[in-house]
Amino acid sequence: EGKRPEIWVTSARASGDVVDATIAGARMREVPSLILFGTGHGLAPALLEACDGVVAAIRGDGSYNHLSVRAAVAITLDRLFGEQGANPAGSD
Amino acid sequence: EGKRPEIWVTSARASGDVVDATIAGARMREVPSLILFGTGHGLAPALLEACDGVVAAIRGDGSYNHLSVRAAVAITLDRLFGEQGANPAGSD
Repeated sequence: EGKRPEIWVTSARASGDVVDATIAGARMREVPSLILFGTGHGLAPALLEACDGVVAAIRGDGSYNHLSVRAAVAITLDRLFGEQGANPAGSD
Repeated sequence: EGKRPEIWVTSARASGDVVDATIAGARMREVPSLILFGTGHGLAPALLEACDGVVAAIRGDGSYNHLSVRAAVAITLDRLFGEQGANPAGSD
């Protein structure tokens, strides 16, 4: 409360180091966090530089990324917090 | 061609054994497969019994599953075929 949340971005072309989803998810369970998802053109470079962490964008098999943001959000949350992610079945 | 595809279901209350997503995804890359997703009430018991395989349904943190089917499909395909699934980055 009264503290700025940590700001995470998902990016395919991130300037900073990409944090593994399991580690990022564990961190987000500890600290209030805001995750920003880019659309087709991605997030602004200034925003990528200002963020606290980067989680990997979802990549498909091909070169063109046609995944909708809502699907990307679903997959990312699963990787961060799903049974196979930071919150394995039976661990809580 | 001319062969029946293998039929997979996702189910929280499956009669058969649930196949790990990595193994299921590898199998589906080899054999034409059809994945059936249930909505709120799940799939009919007769269908669950007739299927060739079961992949785990997506479970949330709570007891009530309010995930939309489209989000469940996105997550399941990621688990089956995403970079962390049967098709790790750099493996093909």
